[in-house]
Amino acid sequence: MDLPRARAHGTVTQRLIGDHLLSGRMEPGEEIALRVDQTLTQDATGTLVMQELEALDLDRVRTEASVQYVDHNILQADERNAEDHLFLRSAARRFGLWFSKPGNGVSHPTHMHHFGAPGKTLAGSDSHTCAGGSLGMLAIGTGGLEVALAMAGRPLHLTMPKVWGIRLTGQLPPWVSAKDVILELLRRHGVQGGVQRVLEYHGPGLASLTAMDRHVIANMGAELGATTTVFPSDEAVRDFLDGVGRGDDFVEITAEQDASYDLDEEIDLSSLEPLIARPTSPGNVVPVREVAGEPVAQVVVGSSANPGFRDFAVPAAMVARRQVPAGVSFDINPTSREILQDLTRRGATFDLIAAGARIHQSGCLGCIGMGQAPASGRNSLRTFPRNFPGRSGTEDDAVWLCSPETATASALTGVITDPRDWADRLSATPPAPDLPDPPSNNDAMLEPPLPPDEAARVALERGSNISALPELDPLPDSLHGPVLLKAGDDVSTDEISPAGAAALPYRSNIPKLAGFTLTRLDPDYPRRAEAVREDTGHLIVAGANYGQGSSREHAAITPRYLGLRAVIAKSYARIHWQNLVNFGVLPLEFEDPADYERIETDDRLHLSGLREALSPAGAPTLRVRNATRDEEYAVRHRLSPRQREAVLAGGVIPAMTPPPGAGPSASHRPGA
Amino acid sequence: MDLPRARAHGTVTQRLIGDHLLSGRMEPGEEIALRVDQTLTQDATGTLVMQELEALDLDRVRTEASVQYVDHNILQADERNAEDHLFLRSAARRFGLWFSKPGNGVSHPTHMHHFGAPGKTLAGSDSHTCAGGSLGMLAIGTGGLEVALAMAGRPLHLTMPKVWGIRLTGQLPPWVSAKDVILELLRRHGVQGGVQRVLEYHGPGLASLTAMDRHVIANMGAELGATTTVFPSDEAVRDFLDGVGRGDDFVEITAEQDASYDLDEEIDLSSLEPLIARPTSPGNVVPVREVAGEPVAQVVVGSSANPGFRDFAVPAAMVARRQVPAGVSFDINPTSREILQDLTRRGATFDLIAAGARIHQSGCLGCIGMGQAPASGRNSLRTFPRNFPGRSGTEDDAVWLCSPETATASALTGVITDPRDWADRLSATPPAPDLPDPPSNNDAMLEPPLPPDEAARVALERGSNISALPELDPLPDSLHGPVLLKAGDDVSTDEISPAGAAALPYRSNIPKLAGFTLTRLDPDYPRRAEAVREDTGHLIVAGANYGQGSSREHAAITPRYLGLRAVIAKSYARIHWQNLVNFGVLPLEFEDPADYERIETDDRLHLSGLREALSPAGAPTLRVRNATRDEEYAVRHRLSPRQREAVLAGGVIPAMTPPPGAGPSASHRPGA
Repeated sequence: MDLPRARAHGTVTQRLIGDHLLSGRMEPGEEIALRVDQTLTQDATGTLVMQELEALDLDRVRTEASVQYVDHNILQADERNAEDHLFLRSAARRFGLWFSKPGNGVSHPTHMHHFGAPGKTLAGSDSHTCAGGSLGMLAIGTGGLEVALAMAGRPLHLTMPKVWGIRLTGQLPPWVSAKDVILELLRRHGVQGGVQRVLEYHGPGLASLTAMDRHVIANMGAELGATTTVFPSDEAVRDFLDGVGRGDDFVEITAEQDASYDLDEEIDLSSLEPLIARPTSPGNVVPVREVAGEPVAQVVVGSSANPGFRDFAVPAAMVARRQVPAGVSFDINPTSREILQDLTRRGATFDLIAAGARIHQSGCLGCIGMGQAPASGRNSLRTFPRNFPGRSGTEDDAVWLCSPETATASALTGVITDPRDWADRLSATPPAPDLPDPPSNNDAMLEPPLPPDEAARVALERGSNISALPELDPLPDSLHGPVLLKAGDDVSTDEISPAGAAALPYRSNIPKLAGFTLTRLDPDYPRRAEAVREDTGHLIVAGANYGQGSSREHAAITPRYLGLRAVIAKSYARIHWQNLVNFGVLPLEFEDPADYERIETDDRLHLSGLREALSPAGAPTLRVRNATRDEEYAVRHRLSPRQREAVLAGGVIPAMTPPPGAGPSASHRPGA
Repeated sequence: MDLPRARAHGTVTQRLIGDHLLSGRMEPGEEIALRVDQTLTQDATGTLVMQELEALDLDRVRTEASVQYVDHNILQADERNAEDHLFLRSAARRFGLWFSKPGNGVSHPTHMHHFGAPGKTLAGSDSHTCAGGSLGMLAIGTGGLEVALAMAGRPLHLTMPKVWGIRLTGQLPPWVSAKDVILELLRRHGVQGGVQRVLEYHGPGLASLTAMDRHVIANMGAELGATTTVFPSDEAVRDFLDGVGRGDDFVEITAEQDASYDLDEEIDLSSLEPLIARPTSPGNVVPVREVAGEPVAQVVVGSSANPGFRDFAVPAAMVARRQVPAGVSFDINPTSREILQDLTRRGATFDLIAAGARIHQSGCLGCIGMGQAPASGRNSLRTFPRNFPGRSGTEDDAVWLCSPETATASALTGVITDPRDWADRLSATPPAPDLPDPPSNNDAMLEPPLPPDEAARVALERGSNISALPELDPLPDSLHGPVLLKAGDDVSTDEISPAGAAALPYRSNIPKLAGFTLTRLDPDYPRRAEAVREDTGHLIVAGANYGQGSSREHAAITPRYLGLRAVIAKSYARIHWQNLVNFGVLPLEFEDPADYERIETDDRLHLSGLREALSPAGAPTLRVRNATRDEEYAVRHRLSPRQREAVLAGGVIPAMTPPPGAGPSASHRPGA
């Protein structure tokens, strides 16, 4: 067989996928189905997932471990957040999940600490689930419904990605840290650089990166649009697991000696310098020195992108016996209560407080726009993974992404500062905090699953803000509707269904949340969609990488609720594409991207013969007529037979729960 | 002269007032004018105060110290809070104030630490300013405009209160603390028990109360409606000032040997037991044992009502090596970064974190509904001063007020628990944490005033959310308008102009904030008021103690903005009554409270001849005609000549800034 030269083999990715493959071929572009060992849900996506478990009539999760975290909606501006927490706890008790209390910490590092294990698969309804790759797991962020199905024992479907081998050599210089590695990759390849790829790290440079350093790098693989990130399970992983008291979970998993990758990349760690992503994209990366001197109003250290002990201990050492100037707010979001425990025991918390830090509760906070919104146009430096426009809660924000070292040097000087230059001026030596050994192990905020008999008696505590899932009707055979929005490239799910303190509390309430849909692009979209919802429904036209960023399925459900039936884009971000399918929206792509330019807002598009086109025998190409301009365009879909059936039925849930009297559909058989 | 037997003399109150008296007689009920040494503003009221300084055309504050704190609006759900902080800092720099950064702490204990001094007067635009009485100051919470006038060197006017001598004997038993003392007073006398009184503590029981214990007691004097609370300046005050490095500020001020009081009360500290205020009033006080066993979903420790090191160190000692159960959220709001520094140095922070506490940034937070809202109807125990309905941010809340000991015992058991019973079960001894000696002294988040020449060059940074003060037109000679609302007794300013995360960010934006006015009593009030605003304006009828609680002048400005011209009530809370006058709303009282029953919502009331009635020669009694029912009622006002002039002019600001061409009014002369 005449394989292309660089066809991957012997990689960690292939071993992890192969070990869990239920169906499909491991050829890039093919749909594969994987067994899921663990799931992770957080509260902003989890309330819907729990409603989906109800809709699926699940009695008890079938995974090895499923964990419900509360880390997003923890400000509690009114009763809605607290009532969601009660609902989630009751659902965790009912369905056999672990429950991580508000204040216990951000899902990804907490999961890594208590559940992460080499060789396992993890599906999570959060796009940064990929951080689990730091331990040699196959950890994939996906829509909530797919996580619900995984909990129900069903496979996770995805398109087999290419394996992108990233060889690390050398060692990081002083004042340069793991964040700069992933920023370098974003500098080289931008926010679409990892689409349909797994980023697999290898090479001698790995030896100097701890498991938590790898978490930083794996986490922000999501910002390249990657399917996930994978590190080998080696001595660093063994050290980590020994430290958290789970040495028994260690399995060595490394690439074979002669492994090769579909694509190759090399990063010489010793050549890196402090980098920073300018507003308003993680892909706008430049050397810190190039923007040095810009005034800074706010600095925030925290989030799943820089979650480790050292990511706080280094800033603490830098600010010790110094003061942050009056014009700068210096905010610390401890990742988890265990890390805060260690920081406090070691004196780092004291140093931060004494220097003027505002210490916040453990959780995501400003990273998803729950508080900490900066003033309009004032520079805010954050160790976070994302700076999409408005994600901070401030419409006209100026958020920059950087390492803890760069953030802290800038907090102390009040202007953007390369930490090497700060150190030179003060003759400061790079802090090298001893990692706590062992780190704190405090699982008292992690409630274990109830035994089945007790669980069966638990009633769900449904607050008044928790709506039912909307009814999803089948796709009509033909669509004739207006294009209500023409979106550009790289539109994020933050723009489709905003995070932030106004919208997030409605994450369990689709009718209410729908009023926020796409309002960052067109404040009038919900009203205009509502106006034609019962009549024709509507379509959206979009550029490349539509739906990048967060995994929230609300970005599919709320426009669908408002009558969206099809999107035509140049291309999609992976998770959003799946979410559209899951909720019965037809995701189409232009055969000729130039046709994008020919369609304008309010043009009326016609699509007909959809049932035949989406039948198992249908061709992947369709024609769209633009009635307004009297033109036709060729579009295609990339739907598997399983997905075609779901879209036709109106979504995965109606496909699985046919109306009374109908026979079981193909996808309704367990394991199908 | 035939004095009533109990006429006060020789009290600390009289000495403090006498030392600052600029005009008026120290007879209860008379208007007096006092020189103000210090002022305090917080951010929720301060943005208006700074706009008032602008309206008064002030160049620089004339007090000994004026301090702008940022402790209320620190969640920053969008850009508005951060922009208010920038505005306040710029105004502090412009007008010569100290500026306390977000994260530095709650105003009252921070002021006590850095500025509180026996013998001084303090006017603060926060109703808990009275906490300053703990150090032998005369510290009075008042409307923002009065604080602005004080900063401008003008006197503070108030009605001479009666002096209520409260003699303390004995010592507090184990597990009973200062909070239980003030709860006992609320149990005896309710939320109107201190109206037109100064609570002056004396007696041998004082010796066992630290200055910070006294802060707890003085703070919640506000909940009895008192003008303020006064403690003597004795050894406990000397110890406190020595501790914070300001021993030089100590002056002994105690009552004379033969002092007598207008009214007398006695509390035997040794007879007290743990008390708790039930939802939804600080006056609903019962013994904890009476309600023991009620399930608890949330416990919050913090706020200006329990701000001291011991108020956190005792809970820390109680939870050390224990865990809060899964169903309880245990929230810690450190009062200030200095106290958090000490708690952290002593290991108390560690014990709290390890037991499962959510540690929040220093500030007011849930106490004014900025986050921490509980689930509807779920019991939340708080060491806060207030539990008015909905103040937590949750419409249907169930907030209880108690001591740190009771709160912590209940957090650990998951049900309301008398700490003595908890201790008995566990054979626990009462924690007696050593106070840090000296306490941390870290003023780096407290920016000193700029020198005058630098200050003059500072431009105000006015974010898009900061509106100008509304124009205030003169009172017409006659009013003919509908009663848009008939309110009951004890309506709080939280109900008139809500706190909470939705409304608070609009504290600088009167037109926007007006939309929230009185919506807790009638969601339609703003629209109905708007409808008749240009035409007739409107009136409000209320029961007793109208406008209790917070000092926010927004509760006068926003209804006035919507066209309110007069209120007729059975009685008023002090600060709100002044705020109504300051913004040109005529506050009237029923001669016969039974007439309250005769008026209904939407009745049309007529008042005529107001100019003459409010002239210096006018009688304090007026007649109101109810055109709907064809009845008449006698009402009276309690306005001084100065206040009559203000109401006629449309408020204090128009009274001081007459239209061009008009001569200076009486109140326009400095010192008038």
